[in-house]
Amino acid sequence: MTYTLVLLRHGESEWNAKNLFTGWVDVALSEKGVGEAKRGGELLKESGILPDVVHTSLLRRAMNTANYALDAADRLWIPVKRDWRLNERHYGALQGKDKAATLEQYGEEQFKLWRRSYDTPPPAIEVGSEFSQDADPRYAGAPVVLTECLKDVLERALPYVKDEVFGDLKSGKTVLVAAHGNSLRAIVKYLDEISDEDIAGVNIPTGIPLVYELDEDFKPVTKGGRYLDPEAAAASIQAVANQGKK
Amino acid sequence: MTYTLVLLRHGESEWNAKNLFTGWVDVALSEKGVGEAKRGGELLKESGILPDVVHTSLLRRAMNTANYALDAADRLWIPVKRDWRLNERHYGALQGKDKAATLEQYGEEQFKLWRRSYDTPPPAIEVGSEFSQDADPRYAGAPVVLTECLKDVLERALPYVKDEVFGDLKSGKTVLVAAHGNSLRAIVKYLDEISDEDIAGVNIPTGIPLVYELDEDFKPVTKGGRYLDPEAAAASIQAVANQGKK
Repeated sequence: MTYTLVLLRHGESEWNAKNLFTGWVDVALSEKGVGEAKRGGELLKESGILPDVVHTSLLRRAMNTANYALDAADRLWIPVKRDWRLNERHYGALQGKDKAATLEQYGEEQFKLWRRSYDTPPPAIEVGSEFSQDADPRYAGAPVVLTECLKDVLERALPYVKDEVFGDLKSGKTVLVAAHGNSLRAIVKYLDEISDEDIAGVNIPTGIPLVYELDEDFKPVTKGGRYLDPEAAAASIQAVANQGKK
Repeated sequence: MTYTLVLLRHGESEWNAKNLFTGWVDVALSEKGVGEAKRGGELLKESGILPDVVHTSLLRRAMNTANYALDAADRLWIPVKRDWRLNERHYGALQGKDKAATLEQYGEEQFKLWRRSYDTPPPAIEVGSEFSQDADPRYAGAPVVLTECLKDVLERALPYVKDEVFGDLKSGKTVLVAAHGNSLRAIVKYLDEISDEDIAGVNIPTGIPLVYELDEDFKPVTKGGRYLDPEAAAASIQAVANQGKK
């Protein structure tokens, strides 16, 4: 008896394409991103791994990824749960800024620290500024977030995963989590017991369902899970690794 | 103190365009239907009537109408509830059949009776046949439905509306119900206390939010509610009335 957890990172957004820091800014999927989501749903359908419930962040790029994928898998009718604790990492004052310009302004070391260190958040975003979500009604019940490092993401995502996601798994449901690069890295770090250092090198490809079979203690039967399109996943991971070398 | 209930009928589906009886067959929105849904969401946004929770049927044309509309209104993040009791009327053995061919085969009187009478359902669909949903996993917990008249729809939809929809209204939420011609006619029949005879003449336009302000006893402050685009709604209702005269 194992539990089946499927992680799905949203496809390309309009700001990915523009090379801007996004974080909690609620940008839409690009056309390419919509296609990635549909392809993810087809992979679910082909593999016969059919979610019984879906958990998403409160950001439209993840919600729409879930919608397109589930529609393609003929499972749009399953129960939906949404929570801010599955959101992307809040990128603080960098939200809305151009990545290349930021790199130039602050230098490679600082840039890398903000992007990849486990526990160094970018400067806080100014309350009330254009790309801040402090007054957004969707976060009315949540604490005000002005910046986050990956550790912060893990600390707010994990209680939700343990309560809500594991709760649904426990009742025998196949669970889909549609979320973001960093909220999924936080979940994977916990599941695969990856160190604070090693998580810097872990990237999750977009739009390819990552399936974990978990034992009764919610430990992965196979570390790292398995991607439903392993070749595309490997190519994507390699491409990100090469980017870092440029 | 009033409650705000918004009803939204899905836009054109692929089978509307093909002139086939649909019922519970889970066909997709057409491109036109997607546009109608987005326009419905823009009307919500412009009017400042912002849903706090959405209820949908289990059919993708209603679920996607809700998704496109809420995304356009910047409210895709609200809680989602789905229930088969908001489904379109089950069209029995007529599901999947061409409307014009059915009219020719059975004659106008019988055809009208199946389409518009309050309490005469079409013949039951054959269990296990192509367009039957008796084995569809989404209805696993529900009674098997093989045909319905409008009275049947009202009798299964109303308990859901009174429990779940009114429950959300009572807690102060603006509620969006994204559903179908006949499940919405059933709700309107109840709210506006329309007789079994008169409901035959009531049609709800697609894609135009219909807003009811309800008093403490869930009675409409204004009978019939109001459409957010009254001119387009009137034109659509007139077009359907003219169809009947041909």
